[in-house]
Amino acid sequence: METVLRSRSKTVTIGAGLPFCVIGERINPTGRKAFAEQLRAGDLSTVTADALAQVQSGADMLDVNAGIPLVDEAGLLMSMLRTVQDAAEVPVCIDSSVVEALAAGLSVYEGRALVNSVTAEDERLEQILPLVAAHGAAVIGLANDETGIPETPSQRLQCARKIVSAAGDHGIAPQDVVIDPLAMTVGADPHAVSTTLATIALIRDELGVNMCLGASNVSFGLPRRHALGASFLSMAMAAGLTSAIMSTAPECVQSVRAADLLLGHDPWGSNWIAAHRARQAQEAAAASAAP
Amino acid sequence: METVLRSRSKTVTIGAGLPFCVIGERINPTGRKAFAEQLRAGDLSTVTADALAQVQSGADMLDVNAGIPLVDEAGLLMSMLRTVQDAAEVPVCIDSSVVEALAAGLSVYEGRALVNSVTAEDERLEQILPLVAAHGAAVIGLANDETGIPETPSQRLQCARKIVSAAGDHGIAPQDVVIDPLAMTVGADPHAVSTTLATIALIRDELGVNMCLGASNVSFGLPRRHALGASFLSMAMAAGLTSAIMSTAPECVQSVRAADLLLGHDPWGSNWIAAHRARQAQEAAAASAAP
Repeated sequence: METVLRSRSKTVTIGAGLPFCVIGERINPTGRKAFAEQLRAGDLSTVTADALAQVQSGADMLDVNAGIPLVDEAGLLMSMLRTVQDAAEVPVCIDSSVVEALAAGLSVYEGRALVNSVTAEDERLEQILPLVAAHGAAVIGLANDETGIPETPSQRLQCARKIVSAAGDHGIAPQDVVIDPLAMTVGADPHAVSTTLATIALIRDELGVNMCLGASNVSFGLPRRHALGASFLSMAMAAGLTSAIMSTAPECVQSVRAADLLLGHDPWGSNWIAAHRARQAQEAAAASAAP
Repeated sequence: METVLRSRSKTVTIGAGLPFCVIGERINPTGRKAFAEQLRAGDLSTVTADALAQVQSGADMLDVNAGIPLVDEAGLLMSMLRTVQDAAEVPVCIDSSVVEALAAGLSVYEGRALVNSVTAEDERLEQILPLVAAHGAAVIGLANDETGIPETPSQRLQCARKIVSAAGDHGIAPQDVVIDPLAMTVGADPHAVSTTLATIALIRDELGVNMCLGASNVSFGLPRRHALGASFLSMAMAAGLTSAIMSTAPECVQSVRAADLLLGHDPWGSNWIAAHRARQAQEAAAASAAP
């Protein structure tokens, strides 16, 4: 099953046999006080810089979130999306929990976006799916419902199934529903990652849809978070994860590209070897430029 | 199921719920020309240095191999094992394809060694298992037989089952058989790692024994091998691998310890956080020692 996203000029396909889709997480004011202040003051320069830096670091897509307390989220999200579209070629994830902001974002997006996100809650499904369908977009479906975050993989599968089914009722095909199996913080629950991995494998086997999760959650509150993220991403890919909203730190991106090769999604290592040569060339250039 | 190994003074336990057992691969002259020449000349100084360095880098055990063409392997292996026992406290893997060398190694080893290895070939089972039983050792069983390396996980499971059963006939308990699910080179076969991961999960589910593999094989012939090894080890641990003969390069060891934490084998991250603090202290000491 393949999920196709488009910007003005670029197409990205998410699929089980393809290289993993890295979605840069950085354009999000949550927990970024200085960035939030800039955005509040109408300064979008960091949006441009973050877009460029993440693509340079290997992002295939960019998540864009405008959630700042007491700010007109719909208006800000539109401005940020216009800025990202001008700065970078890759498609975006339009990320908001506010329906009106998603609608505003979709209205200015020139391409086929991934809407982030809907849940299995009836009210959310009824609000968001018609919007996704009207814009011919794809959507991330979080595997939780009115009762909260399900503890077991089979309960999460039930939520996923409900979302795929409701999407179908709105004319959205299964390949345009990307399920988030939910990655919780391992520092709060030693079983959190095992549950996520089992959920990924179950959804792969039972539904076969693409999946995306926020990979940085797992390491919250722990030291050396990129190393934990790197290890987690390789595991999750082996279980069947096909995309993630994640840090584009070198450790994390390298782990993803290594896992692509190991899992047979980079036949004969051609992407891996090309990246190695590009890095060698960069290092040689840096060395010859040094005094 | 727990496999217990001992040196003169230290006990190491391999088990599914425990931190992964890192077995340093370096004390092996295969592909190390200068080291082979030293050993041929009776110079064991690199054995001592490699033992110390690998333990310092995080090895829980050390593999010791003395295979050099036209050299008395039994005699050399005895010397190397004596040297390793004097240099380092951790238990060893006695690694040889020559039965007489394994016998000689076991005769000088003061503790409970892991014998590396037997296969599911009838002749090998009949030669090696009595030796393992006589010394009260544990043994690595390679999941291949007279017909070569099986292509499918279920064929590898059959080999593993045969080894566990034959071991039982010699009075060796299942917890003292550590199965090698076989990790082949992904550069030669894009499906190699997927087959290994499926084999690990199958053996975990069907036999529940401990497993060990040579993790460096997978990246043979490719650039940035430690990054590939790091990604592979995390995946294999998530599938159920409990030990590996591997590089103790920081990338690889860090990936293993990250996976321990993520999989709930390092509850509340106490080992991870302790390692982080030790590294911080080292860095601070290095910084204050700098001119």
